[in-house]
Amino acid sequence: MTRTTALLTDHYELTMLQAALAGGTAERRCVFELFSRSLPDGRRYGVVAGVGRALDALEAFRFDQESLDALDGVVDEPTLAWLSAYRFSGDVQGYGEGETYFPGSPLLVVEASFAEAVLLETVLLSIYNHDSAIAAAASRMTRAAGDRPCIEMGSRRTHEEAAVAAARAAYVAGFEATSNLAARHRWGVPSTGTSAHSFTLLHDTEADAFRVQVDSLGVGTTLLVDTYDVAEAVRLGVEVAGTGLGAVRLDSGDLGVLAHQVREQLDSLGAHDTRIVVTSDLDEYAIAGLGAAPVDGYGVGTQLVTGSGHPTCGMVYKLVAREDSRGEMEPVAKRSSKKASFGGRKWAHRHLGTDGYAEAEVVGTGPAPDPGPRSRDLLVPLVRAGEVVGREPLADARARHLASREELPLAAQSMSRGEPVLPTRRVDPTTGG
Amino acid sequence: MTRTTALLTDHYELTMLQAALAGGTAERRCVFELFSRSLPDGRRYGVVAGVGRALDALEAFRFDQESLDALDGVVDEPTLAWLSAYRFSGDVQGYGEGETYFPGSPLLVVEASFAEAVLLETVLLSIYNHDSAIAAAASRMTRAAGDRPCIEMGSRRTHEEAAVAAARAAYVAGFEATSNLAARHRWGVPSTGTSAHSFTLLHDTEADAFRVQVDSLGVGTTLLVDTYDVAEAVRLGVEVAGTGLGAVRLDSGDLGVLAHQVREQLDSLGAHDTRIVVTSDLDEYAIAGLGAAPVDGYGVGTQLVTGSGHPTCGMVYKLVAREDSRGEMEPVAKRSSKKASFGGRKWAHRHLGTDGYAEAEVVGTGPAPDPGPRSRDLLVPLVRAGEVVGREPLADARARHLASREELPLAAQSMSRGEPVLPTRRVDPTTGG
Repeated sequence: MTRTTALLTDHYELTMLQAALAGGTAERRCVFELFSRSLPDGRRYGVVAGVGRALDALEAFRFDQESLDALDGVVDEPTLAWLSAYRFSGDVQGYGEGETYFPGSPLLVVEASFAEAVLLETVLLSIYNHDSAIAAAASRMTRAAGDRPCIEMGSRRTHEEAAVAAARAAYVAGFEATSNLAARHRWGVPSTGTSAHSFTLLHDTEADAFRVQVDSLGVGTTLLVDTYDVAEAVRLGVEVAGTGLGAVRLDSGDLGVLAHQVREQLDSLGAHDTRIVVTSDLDEYAIAGLGAAPVDGYGVGTQLVTGSGHPTCGMVYKLVAREDSRGEMEPVAKRSSKKASFGGRKWAHRHLGTDGYAEAEVVGTGPAPDPGPRSRDLLVPLVRAGEVVGREPLADARARHLASREELPLAAQSMSRGEPVLPTRRVDPTTGG
Repeated sequence: MTRTTALLTDHYELTMLQAALAGGTAERRCVFELFSRSLPDGRRYGVVAGVGRALDALEAFRFDQESLDALDGVVDEPTLAWLSAYRFSGDVQGYGEGETYFPGSPLLVVEASFAEAVLLETVLLSIYNHDSAIAAAASRMTRAAGDRPCIEMGSRRTHEEAAVAAARAAYVAGFEATSNLAARHRWGVPSTGTSAHSFTLLHDTEADAFRVQVDSLGVGTTLLVDTYDVAEAVRLGVEVAGTGLGAVRLDSGDLGVLAHQVREQLDSLGAHDTRIVVTSDLDEYAIAGLGAAPVDGYGVGTQLVTGSGHPTCGMVYKLVAREDSRGEMEPVAKRSSKKASFGGRKWAHRHLGTDGYAEAEVVGTGPAPDPGPRSRDLLVPLVRAGEVVGREPLADARARHLASREELPLAAQSMSRGEPVLPTRRVDPTTGG
């Protein structure tokens, strides 16, 4: 049983609810949209992640007695009574998990009463902003790594629960495995790991440490070879494990130079199949920089879990249409200049060129046109009348990401800063724009 | 009942355990130290946060049947049997929560068998690295804000559970309140909040929205005045609520200019006590930049929960001493150049000058000398023989932070990039250094 997510919420969602209940406007039918006005500075594409977690959070969004007691002093009695029966009964459509996105892409379209929909704002944004930031960084890293596997090992550098979500998001964006055991347990992400410097230091000698490790974990294990002297450790490793040694790990120093030296040494010792894994402060640039070095895998920590410079996305959750006092649905939008939004319920298509590569993100209001043979409809049903219908295996999200990334123009492969690789075209039937 | 934290752990902690159990080295007495080799680039001081959460996590670190089942395929049967009885029985000392710290400060000193202590590495680092990063940013912000209150409202920009921890850490570092309801519930952090743009847009007119809000939440509420036209909204707000209107909130535009205009308008309407709260993409620099503007409070979101450019600390958990095969305790340290560490169990004093300001962080090995009248002992007992003894009210951590920050040299007040304001002096009895 998942714990309730109801308190993972901002205070003002509850006070707005109280006021709207008292004012008779809480039941107005509304459309909220979760989207991003821009990508993080310099990024070419975004990656939607957290969809599966958001659906779980929505389902677990119930006010049990403990939650209601916790709201004593926050809202009044009628509001508490209303909350005790809270259950989301609306509809949600959204981009599939792993899909790439662009400024203005309607990542979630939530239709329900104001009261039901406004309460979900904080937890939906928390999940989408965090998980998508990790996935965007992960996607750049797995692209830079090409065919070589990336392993997520950043748990210790981020909040202990964020770590689990980060491992999951990295897997969606192409990482092969994680060090995080909770991600293995909860989400089935493959986990991996062998030993740290403390294990070597625990033993009287490095040789003792290697023997103990190989005896217990087998010759296929990965030996950490940079506690004292790398060349001596590599020699010892092959002496202890034989030429069938699985891998050696380098966690410090000039990784490119070391990898060449270690590869040469391993080959000279006959350990041709022993892999070299590197793990020190890597990001997508360092991974790409090691492209010519004889490296067989990348372990990525800090830079992955902190989004490689962009630890959060700028996603927002905005009211874009609502029923007015006559019962008519009406598009609405804030009118301040900098944060202006685009009112009305959206549809979204990815338009493809004749070469099969994506050409534009087409986002419109009004009735969605048929996408036709050269466009994909980007919105999939996630919740219908309160029932979650969009759950899928994590492998599907992973496959969707790889396919969506492949479809992007070649500029998406560039790690350098630049504009989003697709323009977002807005289609508004009222202006013909 | 807290859920077990046992799986919030890296895979390799478990495989090291298996190997050490099989190799007969798992029960060697060890000292692990949690510390940071440096502060984030340019920062003048660090702030320890997460201590109370870490103690909870340590207490909840038990392998229940579900956890053991989840480790099928990770470790062997003897290891699972050992884990089923796991309970930390060692000792932990550490810096009190809220204390400032410097490179090399021994933030936690964990003494136990290798097996017991190594398993805690990941979850302790996750908590310390995250919470301390938030607290360090928060401390700069509350200092920049001076007597004006800072309110934490970044939940939507970070993982939903990281958000709760961030609200807690910000409170430790001087924030007055949070928007996060779970932080209120779990940690007693005061929560606050009123309304969003969606609330204004829900209503047919801004006047309707203000009336509904004031009727329900009282004239002391905060009205959001930048949905359409600020001056018109301020006029309306005072018309609806009267001159007793609690506050207005500005969430966009040039906040300094707007604050002056709004203050003038409020005063001209007789609403002299109506406060002005600003909330748009603030960080410590923006807060300081508004120092001369008539602003009464700062709501801080993204930059707080992402550590204002430094979303994690570089804290590590290293074996610094262990029993050897003869049963003698021996200092140990990795010998690679860049990541070299300083072996041996540490003590730490904050040395104060005659003016009462701190002069140095003194960290040594060997028997701790008496701190004397001009030094403070920085290590406090947190766990004794497996029992948590270091729990304290969050208010104590908050008070400790403010006192510790006050004691730092004036350069700590500088927001500009620079060296740590205190040097770390190492005292090693074996070298006399």
